[in-house]
Amino acid sequence: MTQGTIVGVGLGPGSQDLMSVRADRLIRGASHVAYFRKKGRTGHARGIVEGMLAPEVTELAMEYPVTTEIPFDDPRYNELLSAFYELSVAQLIEMAEAGCDVVVLCEGDPFFYGSFMHLYTRLLNRVPVSVVPGITGMSAAWTATGQPITWGDDILTVVMATLPEATLAERIAETDALVVMKIGRNLGKLRRALAHAGREDEAWLIEYAAMRQERVQPFKDAGESVPYFSIVLIHGHGRRP
Amino acid sequence: MTQGTIVGVGLGPGSQDLMSVRADRLIRGASHVAYFRKKGRTGHARGIVEGMLAPEVTELAMEYPVTTEIPFDDPRYNELLSAFYELSVAQLIEMAEAGCDVVVLCEGDPFFYGSFMHLYTRLLNRVPVSVVPGITGMSAAWTATGQPITWGDDILTVVMATLPEATLAERIAETDALVVMKIGRNLGKLRRALAHAGREDEAWLIEYAAMRQERVQPFKDAGESVPYFSIVLIHGHGRRP
Repeated sequence: MTQGTIVGVGLGPGSQDLMSVRADRLIRGASHVAYFRKKGRTGHARGIVEGMLAPEVTELAMEYPVTTEIPFDDPRYNELLSAFYELSVAQLIEMAEAGCDVVVLCEGDPFFYGSFMHLYTRLLNRVPVSVVPGITGMSAAWTATGQPITWGDDILTVVMATLPEATLAERIAETDALVVMKIGRNLGKLRRALAHAGREDEAWLIEYAAMRQERVQPFKDAGESVPYFSIVLIHGHGRRP
Repeated sequence: MTQGTIVGVGLGPGSQDLMSVRADRLIRGASHVAYFRKKGRTGHARGIVEGMLAPEVTELAMEYPVTTEIPFDDPRYNELLSAFYELSVAQLIEMAEAGCDVVVLCEGDPFFYGSFMHLYTRLLNRVPVSVVPGITGMSAAWTATGQPITWGDDILTVVMATLPEATLAERIAETDALVVMKIGRNLGKLRRALAHAGREDEAWLIEYAAMRQERVQPFKDAGESVPYFSIVLIHGHGRRP
């Protein structure tokens, strides 16, 4: 029997018509789909494709054993996640060995800070595996602001708000254009880093970019908490003929 | 009469099935399309949509008065380009004033180092204008390498090879993951900057990502010239449970 292929498919930022034509075809035609989700939830990736799956599709929900309950620098975090990825990989390989192609639903672009990468590197050289790129959440975010993110020779820096405050402040001060992700409980730290870099007034907060609840506001108007799907950015101001 | 809308539509990296479902629908249904091209050429954006346009479509080819004949720091470069953008905008506004919607074909993502931005900022507040994001060329490039670009807290820096050599070397040394665009005649300078940063052996060269001629090779195996559609990148190595 021929092994099936595991395909990590980028869904884009969250609107069904912002996924690629290739992703749309693969998802509608899939016999097997897999996706990550938090225990007891629908899962955001699964939610994006609602109404697109074939009625007889087989679904594999890969449920995180932990998300934010344990800090990521606790050794147990890596151990738990690693065991979870190994289990998920074993399930996917079993499907592939049975000759089934499996579409793994990935928010945004699979190779850009995605969770699929942790499966991908473990699947390599064991079963056929491939990736379909997607529109990133940050592209949706800067599109939502109605302003270009980079011009001419602008330098763009993408940082996670999980970094130390001093690192954030330094990188924010040194770049032309900026994208910040993984904000969540790091909002206060990010605010101090932006202020330290003297750039708080240039920053925009985009919540749920390209989704139904999309909201764009100056960062200085942000409250004391932001949803998981939040991106902060600063636009570049490069050469403009 | 109602004004038409000018829509900058991201085509993605170059393969028709990597454009978004929204872009696909807009392009196939368009009565008017516009695109940049070099004089006497088909134009890359126009080439991507070959076979997709309605038979009765009206096409507006916006032909650059200059591309690489004059260095971009020559004052004539900005003057020529600025006049060209004004003329293009006048043509687009004429179409919109006549009640026609116009799809402007944009390679990659319109707001990410795109040319459409120069029209967009001039069209704002004069006619309705909107943007559809797209998969970037860099996403196609890192997907082509078969390796994730960023993990965990990795910092990603995007730089243009047109920057000064010292700036390039400094940014390359300081980042986790790297994307370099606009390489062309700056190849030698980029090579020296990578070597100065001690990272030449980590770099990959991707030519024509997601296109028919796609080619991936270690940067150290690159020759003395690269095509326009070339991206150099270094993968991050962040936290991997």
